[in-house]
Amino acid sequence: MPIGFEIDERVAGIARRTTEFVREVVIPEEQACDGDVHAGPEPLRRRLQDAAREAGVFAPHVGAEWGGLGLDLCGQAVVFEAAGYSLLGPLALNCAAPDEGNTHLLEVVATEEQKERYLRPLAAGETRSCFAMTEPAPGAGSDPRALTTTATRIDGGWLIDGRKWFISGADGAAFAICMARTSGGPGDPGGATMFLIAADNPGMKIVRNIDTLDQGLFGGHSEIAFEGCEVGDEAVLGEVDQGFAYAQVRLGPARMTHCMRWLGVARRAQDIALERAADRSAFGKPLAELGMVQQMLADSEIDIETGRAVLWRACWELDQGRPAAQHTSIAKIYVSEAVNRVVDRAVQICGALGISGDAPLSRLYREVRPFRIYDGPSETHRWAVAKRAVRAARERRGTR
Amino acid sequence: MPIGFEIDERVAGIARRTTEFVREVVIPEEQACDGDVHAGPEPLRRRLQDAAREAGVFAPHVGAEWGGLGLDLCGQAVVFEAAGYSLLGPLALNCAAPDEGNTHLLEVVATEEQKERYLRPLAAGETRSCFAMTEPAPGAGSDPRALTTTATRIDGGWLIDGRKWFISGADGAAFAICMARTSGGPGDPGGATMFLIAADNPGMKIVRNIDTLDQGLFGGHSEIAFEGCEVGDEAVLGEVDQGFAYAQVRLGPARMTHCMRWLGVARRAQDIALERAADRSAFGKPLAELGMVQQMLADSEIDIETGRAVLWRACWELDQGRPAAQHTSIAKIYVSEAVNRVVDRAVQICGALGISGDAPLSRLYREVRPFRIYDGPSETHRWAVAKRAVRAARERRGTR
Amino acid sequence: MPIGFEIDERVAGIARRTTEFVREVVIPEEQACDGDVHAGPEPLRRRLQDAAREAGVFAPHVGAEWGGLGLDLCGQAVVFEAAGYSLLGPLALNCAAPDEGNTHLLEVVATEEQKERYLRPLAAGETRSCFAMTEPAPGAGSDPRALTTTATRIDGGWLIDGRKWFISGADGAAFAICMARTSGGPGDPGGATMFLIAADNPGMKIVRNIDTLDQGLFGGHSEIAFEGCEVGDEAVLGEVDQGFAYAQVRLGPARMTHCMRWLGVARRAQDIALERAADRSAFGKPLAELGMVQQMLADSEIDIETGRAVLWRACWELDQGRPAAQHTSIAKIYVSEAVNRVVDRAVQICGALGISGDAPLSRLYREVRPFRIYDGPSETHRWAVAKRAVRAARERRGTR
Amino acid sequence: MPIGFEIDERVAGIARRTTEFVREVVIPEEQACDGDVHAGPEPLRRRLQDAAREAGVFAPHVGAEWGGLGLDLCGQAVVFEAAGYSLLGPLALNCAAPDEGNTHLLEVVATEEQKERYLRPLAAGETRSCFAMTEPAPGAGSDPRALTTTATRIDGGWLIDGRKWFISGADGAAFAICMARTSGGPGDPGGATMFLIAADNPGMKIVRNIDTLDQGLFGGHSEIAFEGCEVGDEAVLGEVDQGFAYAQVRLGPARMTHCMRWLGVARRAQDIALERAADRSAFGKPLAELGMVQQMLADSEIDIETGRAVLWRACWELDQGRPAAQHTSIAKIYVSEAVNRVVDRAVQICGALGISGDAPLSRLYREVRPFRIYDGPSETHRWAVAKRAVRAARERRGTR
Repeated sequence: MPIGFEIDERVAGIARRTTEFVREVVIPEEQACDGDVHAGPEPLRRRLQDAAREAGVFAPHVGAEWGGLGLDLCGQAVVFEAAGYSLLGPLALNCAAPDEGNTHLLEVVATEEQKERYLRPLAAGETRSCFAMTEPAPGAGSDPRALTTTATRIDGGWLIDGRKWFISGADGAAFAICMARTSGGPGDPGGATMFLIAADNPGMKIVRNIDTLDQGLFGGHSEIAFEGCEVGDEAVLGEVDQGFAYAQVRLGPARMTHCMRWLGVARRAQDIALERAADRSAFGKPLAELGMVQQMLADSEIDIETGRAVLWRACWELDQGRPAAQHTSIAKIYVSEAVNRVVDRAVQICGALGISGDAPLSRLYREVRPFRIYDGPSETHRWAVAKRAVRAARERRGTR
Repeated sequence: MPIGFEIDERVAGIARRTTEFVREVVIPEEQACDGDVHAGPEPLRRRLQDAAREAGVFAPHVGAEWGGLGLDLCGQAVVFEAAGYSLLGPLALNCAAPDEGNTHLLEVVATEEQKERYLRPLAAGETRSCFAMTEPAPGAGSDPRALTTTATRIDGGWLIDGRKWFISGADGAAFAICMARTSGGPGDPGGATMFLIAADNPGMKIVRNIDTLDQGLFGGHSEIAFEGCEVGDEAVLGEVDQGFAYAQVRLGPARMTHCMRWLGVARRAQDIALERAADRSAFGKPLAELGMVQQMLADSEIDIETGRAVLWRACWELDQGRPAAQHTSIAKIYVSEAVNRVVDRAVQICGALGISGDAPLSRLYREVRPFRIYDGPSETHRWAVAKRAVRAARERRGTR
Repeated sequence: MPIGFEIDERVAGIARRTTEFVREVVIPEEQACDGDVHAGPEPLRRRLQDAAREAGVFAPHVGAEWGGLGLDLCGQAVVFEAAGYSLLGPLALNCAAPDEGNTHLLEVVATEEQKERYLRPLAAGETRSCFAMTEPAPGAGSDPRALTTTATRIDGGWLIDGRKWFISGADGAAFAICMARTSGGPGDPGGATMFLIAADNPGMKIVRNIDTLDQGLFGGHSEIAFEGCEVGDEAVLGEVDQGFAYAQVRLGPARMTHCMRWLGVARRAQDIALERAADRSAFGKPLAELGMVQQMLADSEIDIETGRAVLWRACWELDQGRPAAQHTSIAKIYVSEAVNRVVDRAVQICGALGISGDAPLSRLYREVRPFRIYDGPSETHRWAVAKRAVRAARERRGTR
Repeated sequence: MPIGFEIDERVAGIARRTTEFVREVVIPEEQACDGDVHAGPEPLRRRLQDAAREAGVFAPHVGAEWGGLGLDLCGQAVVFEAAGYSLLGPLALNCAAPDEGNTHLLEVVATEEQKERYLRPLAAGETRSCFAMTEPAPGAGSDPRALTTTATRIDGGWLIDGRKWFISGADGAAFAICMARTSGGPGDPGGATMFLIAADNPGMKIVRNIDTLDQGLFGGHSEIAFEGCEVGDEAVLGEVDQGFAYAQVRLGPARMTHCMRWLGVARRAQDIALERAADRSAFGKPLAELGMVQQMLADSEIDIETGRAVLWRACWELDQGRPAAQHTSIAKIYVSEAVNRVVDRAVQICGALGISGDAPLSRLYREVRPFRIYDGPSETHRWAVAKRAVRAARERRGTR
């Protein structure tokens, strides 16, 4: 496939339907949860997902076998951006974090039994899920190898103990995928295992829901305690001690799907700013004719266009099955920062309206900030990008 | 007074006491309002102000005649920064917006009767006040001359009609200073008059409290309707048709006192980041030894130090009674943007903690954003700075 | 052609050969002109072009009919970047400005006779050319419509009068393509015509060669006077009064080919910085392990990768024959600024070496700055980007 | 001395005379050296210094005992900025680097005999000097402790061996102050000694003059070899092994005087941009009324004003004799970067003119870039600023 940016017809159709669906069905529902999707009511989620199914846009990333539309990442890039235009859009299409990433992980790694039990209802929107990896300091954070939660061998299974926080979607989830250490100790680069834990396991407790700047993830972010949490051998997801490798399976694409949805947020913010600039006058002319406003509008167009191009590049590399860590790190850094700039400019252009609850901008402003931290802060990714570039430079020299 | 940066002894003493007072009395109360000062309870305000009086730091900006410490702007710059270290600090010292600016305006412009009635209790913290100038589009906003609210001559007084929004502190205020047009029409550079309107005037109604990104101003921001609001001649503040000139009396210094308080916010955020960087390790060393973190910490020190220097410069010009519009515009732009950068970096350094409610950073992050818009958006000030610079260049050339 | 970033095999082969050719043949010649390509000797140009022909990489953008490799813009993007790795590379491949853009313009617009006379030797590297559009203030600059040079109808031809400057490659060119006004006056959006003028026409004189920050264009930039310059009807390129439209034919792709070559410059600078960071130590460790250096290296990788992605996007749109003004403006702004950032960081990383003539960085630093001004300054393009975005927003609303 | 920004009368007078002198005498001479001060002719230097003496502005920083005006750093800040308005101004006032810093060092550290021999003619402009510290990698650079040049004890004196580069003003200097290691080895924090070495010492040779981006330092930057360079005991400047401490005596203020002169450069660039914006029209209005141009002009005013304020702060701390490393690092980082931004914007506003030799901007652009590297690159200073801030935070906590 040579260089090309044509969107294939099927994907373009789904994207078009998604755009209409978001505009006509989803955005009008935004008031229903007053922007606070964290605490959004379950009936709203059901209603939106039913409507998405009817519109033919439900579960675009999920394999046909599990009821989805089976798009690859390049296709998802187009459709998820359209969905992300409303903070409720991804929820409606069942492609919001963390369910979307968990679905992908289960499709790739789970056994048939595990798929029937966990994947099928998740893909159908009947259940929700969470991914329990991050721990309070000094545990697993930007550096996953700091993992402290342990899973100890017991007869016929494992005993899990530890504390997790910032576990998105935990409140209301039917199950958790929990990362625990089965060998080695904090700092070791291996020795982690993933476990599937049903929400009714008495050893897993939600300690509290954390108040966060963002409010757009259904179920919010929770702190979870695993205390003497017993699970059987069938709870192991994939192979023992291979957890860090599976985490990469999940996190590479998950970073990209985040970027896709945020691009939709950025486009929404920019469209609000464009409309405002076209309508509102100051000092005797429309804002849209003031040079400093034009500069902000242009910079946001540039941010969105470049962000999309570099994101598609990374998605395409992943779709080819190539090692794409450098591409995904670059896309994650660039898009998360570009999206923040776009929303910040939109707030500025809209002035008082931008910081009031009368427009969705103040919600979007709160929403996008954490994404420069979630899924690896920009600094961690920059560090990785530089290391890879230096290594490549050394290798180039070595071969000459 | 040649170039100098020594803080005089009396001011230094007040600042030292303020710093201690904030650390020992104010910060422990922050939990009491859970960061949402908007809706903070009146008893909290009373308690804090009593404590400030006891600590000898109450009303630093108010003339001794009215029970204050009588500091000039350079002195205020030092003390208000210390107070701003907590979002509740300025409230405690009775030097929060909008009361602090209104106090100043009344000291300069009001008649003796008006001072006894409105200034004395306000300076003492017995009442609160608001300044009703900003209107919804297409009224007075970044461009005050767009003023649409009218005051019509009636027998023995005036009849005021119009709509105001983003009126800070209106909810609970004992009186409003309302800007209304007594001659000319929207767009005219003159013709505005200020009126003192008691809260129990039946023609003034709070329509709603506006949900905003910031939550740190006691009383929040309201939308207010003036409908057939009758006032007597004694309600006129200063002279008829001179409202825009008085607004400058209020807004020049008020911009600077905002900057002082925000610098305190920036210092708070940076201190949290410094402590975190000193304590927390990642990838095997303290954050404080990672180059990218050092860069953020250094940039924030630079922002605070340069912001303070340029702010003091503008304050000194105002204290000399010189025309200082260029200096105050520059300080407003620079400090408001620098403060935003500092808080943003602190959030980034603190990671998950930075965006959770477990540290005050997420509150500070929301708090500082609107200040690039309030009191004249950066763009309006930049436009004015450029125009003055071009004019000066033309004059320089003309005289050679 | 769906979304894809594969480079097709033929292009990849040419690019690989170009990379080798630049490394082994071109870079060693850089000393020969001491970085000052402006005043580079003609024998060097001949020698390099002969070598490029032998390496099978000569004239990649030129149609096979005229002796070139016939690549479309996407193909050129890959090969020109490889060529741009040395400031002499594009000269060697005969794809440097302004000849490359003129070749394209002649292929599209010229008559068969004009092609034989001007295009054939130009494509073969036997001659050079220039494009005479820009005028000193208040003439045609960022705003081409300000065109003041006139062409007056005379018997059997035209009489051209005017002054041009910043005419790249004029010194030594065999002919100029001159833009002159055949109807209307300065400010009118139409009325321009292109003329082919042989260098030996006595009415065209090079007034001076302009000293500029950049030194990388063979022949430099000249000021030219047209005084009573007579040409016959056969000198008209395309149709009378259609000059502005043809300028777009030339300038859209020419902007993109500039970007391609600059990306090569950026890659060169970054590679020098990477090698330096890998080799040199400070404060007891390799520069490459210092966080602030890593941040600069990572940001440059991001700039190059995003720049390339957005450039390819614009090239692809042009290759499809679609209106791509928004895409090309965005790519021009972004790439020209990104390239400046990359070179600036490389200078900083290399320290004293970066600003001395001992490494090529100080040359590259001077070279890239003007490209934020040439071919439309960033501000003009931003203005156009914003206007198009606002217009699109208005249309979207109109259709709903 | 409380907070104040008044310039005292005597200083204001000198500054006024300097401004006039630069405008009327110095700027007209700029053509004489075609911007390349590096290779400026000695008669030009003599002529300019005689004129400065006549104008009563010669040697503002030098003690009266040595024929100067004896200003403290705050006074110098005002006068040097006025001098820096032309790249030749500091040369004319005999306050250019490196002589100005060497003068200061000799005044503080030299013996009476050394002062008579070296300081008196230097202060009078009869001789020039250089400061030989920086070495090629892996020697003393950003990290002075990497010093490799050695001074070995011999009978009645010392034998110096080593290689230095980027030694400003060496070509034509009457003597060098050379930093050499008298104990310890590369990396040790002590053990350096300063030596005064006359230019006719056969053991000191200028190897070459280095081609650099900047061209504004008289004498340029040279590479120097010390090979078996014998000096007597009277050549030791200050005490043996105290060289690093004296370097701080020189470098702290020298950094600030650099900043003063660069602010003058920034002011010059901004004034050129302001005049251009006032005169030139594009798209039907003066550049000065285009919002994006206004933004650039305003940002440059902000950069200059904040830079000046933070610089004065650091100067005042030094004048008080307080430890001011944090203040001077911050001022150095901020001013050097701000000056680069200002000149870059001026280039952009002036367009083609900005990058041609027809205006001095392209010279200024080349001139200011290295100052983000000279005297400690921004990164080294940022690292130091962060370390001090973290240390202070730790101490604050310790004492509570």
